Amino acid sequence: MTVGLVSRTGEILGQARCEPLGDDHDPNVIVRHIARMVQKVLASQSVSLGAVAGVGVCSPGLLDFDKGLVKAAANLRGWRDVPLTQLMADQLGIDRSRVVLENDGNTALLAELWIGAAKGKKDVVLLTLGTGIGSGIVSGGQLVRGCNGQAGELGHSILIPEGRPNKATGVQGIWEMYASATAVVARAKEGIPADSTLHGLGPEGLGCKEVFKHAADGDTYAQGVVKETARFLAIGCINCARCLDPQLILFTGGMAEAGDQLLTQVREQFALHHWSIAPVRLEFRIADSPAHAGLLGAAYAALLAIDF
Amino acid sequence: MTVGLVSRTGEILGQARCEPLGDDHDPNVIVRHIARMVQKVLASQSVSLGAVAGVGVCSPGLLDFDKGLVKAAANLRGWRDVPLTQLMADQLGIDRSRVVLENDGNTALLAELWIGAAKGKKDVVLLTLGTGIGSGIVSGGQLVRGCNGQAGELGHSILIPEGRPNKATGVQGIWEMYASATAVVARAKEGIPADSTLHGLGPEGLGCKEVFKHAADGDTYAQGVVKETARFLAIGCINCARCLDPQLILFTGGMAEAGDQLLTQVREQFALHHWSIAPVRLEFRIADSPAHAGLLGAAYAALLAIDF
Repeated sequence: MTVGLVSRTGEILGQARCEPLGDDHDPNVIVRHIARMVQKVLASQSVSLGAVAGVGVCSPGLLDFDKGLVKAAANLRGWRDVPLTQLMADQLGIDRSRVVLENDGNTALLAELWIGAAKGKKDVVLLTLGTGIGSGIVSGGQLVRGCNGQAGELGHSILIPEGRPNKATGVQGIWEMYASATAVVARAKEGIPADSTLHGLGPEGLGCKEVFKHAADGDTYAQGVVKETARFLAIGCINCARCLDPQLILFTGGMAEAGDQLLTQVREQFALHHWSIAPVRLEFRIADSPAHAGLLGAAYAALLAIDF
Repeated sequence: MTVGLVSRTGEILGQARCEPLGDDHDPNVIVRHIARMVQKVLASQSVSLGAVAGVGVCSPGLLDFDKGLVKAAANLRGWRDVPLTQLMADQLGIDRSRVVLENDGNTALLAELWIGAAKGKKDVVLLTLGTGIGSGIVSGGQLVRGCNGQAGELGHSILIPEGRPNKATGVQGIWEMYASATAVVARAKEGIPADSTLHGLGPEGLGCKEVFKHAADGDTYAQGVVKETARFLAIGCINCARCLDPQLILFTGGMAEAGDQLLTQVREQFALHHWSIAPVRLEFRIADSPAHAGLLGAAYAALLAIDF
């Protein structure tokens, strides 16, 4: 956990990092701890709580944004319908209306909208290409949340009906089984020929980064894996475009480190699968991914939600 | 074209239907004609234009909603960047801010939101299963338009990469090649066995309606086609759910006439492809499709947009 004091223009004025959680995940204990850190950061900057416009809280898990509830979270044992904004307001001694809850997918996007690659844009999709594919969507300037707060789970959309099974959900052929950083490695490992420079890296040495690097260095097999990954990514992006017509799709996460190498191929594959009567106007970019994006995004969520 | 006077509660108080357009598609001629019909309808109800809160215009084609432009429309020859709201305002002698432009996909959804099956809902997808698959999306109570007004083209999302080619766009495997009413007929015709009751209907006699009817009457081949259609529909709906998390998906258009027969199978297939750790909470329904939905939707668009 990180606590920070953020200015209205997106500068982090002061911050404190929390030691890792122990075994006690009791919400009251955790929130009390956060509140102490808030006071510490404020004191270090000689700012009073009354001068703070709002408090943004970024949480993992399934959230009820309106009620400020954490309905469930995989990494927070025992958290069921935890009234996080109320607990936080009580501990800080402020009104609950000044505390805003946001999820981690959306805070990453909010940080880009505020001070990053999506600044000033109203129709944007952010894709985090890592272990899976995480996503955040803003449409017409409004975050797409859905009726249960479960919108923007694009990594779980079905790309290849009856395709690769996903063990966690039991659903076959979902996007992240083809185009996440994990999927790149899994697919690469399936058929490395003896003449590929990837051969011999060993199970530990072969990551997504290596596949892209060896492709850039001219390895034909690695190039094939990268090209196919770009194709899978592009087809999913076509579907984003048909549904949401964003002006910008941003990539972040491990695979985004490939930068232009990734973008060039995705643009090429996108054009191949694009509705051919209309020109491609959609922009693809690597996200700025500012340090402490979660902190900045939570602060921006508060800034947007609180009338001051 | 239909012109109508609609009350604030969605009743059509008076209306007039226009004779079909002749060869002259000059926007000025058409708008002048519409304006005369507006005056006629108002006179028939003894209502003055001053007493009308706003004018909603439903148009096909690619629109710029903010500027009130019809950028292009396949069936309106020569229409390029036509300032439809301005022309209408000029002809009626009212301020342009009182004229609101909306597209036909969205007006169908707006009619459902106002007085139909989606009343009071904020996260809804409407699918028109006819020649293609048309769609309208509302998310968090706001129509999803996209940056070029091209959102909600779900029928053109890619369901089966490298699948059936679509001649109009050159893209392979799009949703409407599998799950529109037209696609049901095309797929059914491809392999009718001699013992199917569909055999012998002839190319003219075999429509989407017949496939569903023969399936209901026990024909195994027709049942197979219906089941596969439901599967294709359900997979596309899974993807809507992952992206938008709607509370309701509505079906309208020719295939929706199959009613419960369609819904039951789509629900079943949806559950099979659903993220298995979470229960299905998404509701599927046949749209109410009120008469003159385009008229009602355009009126509601004006009601929502104009502050009065």
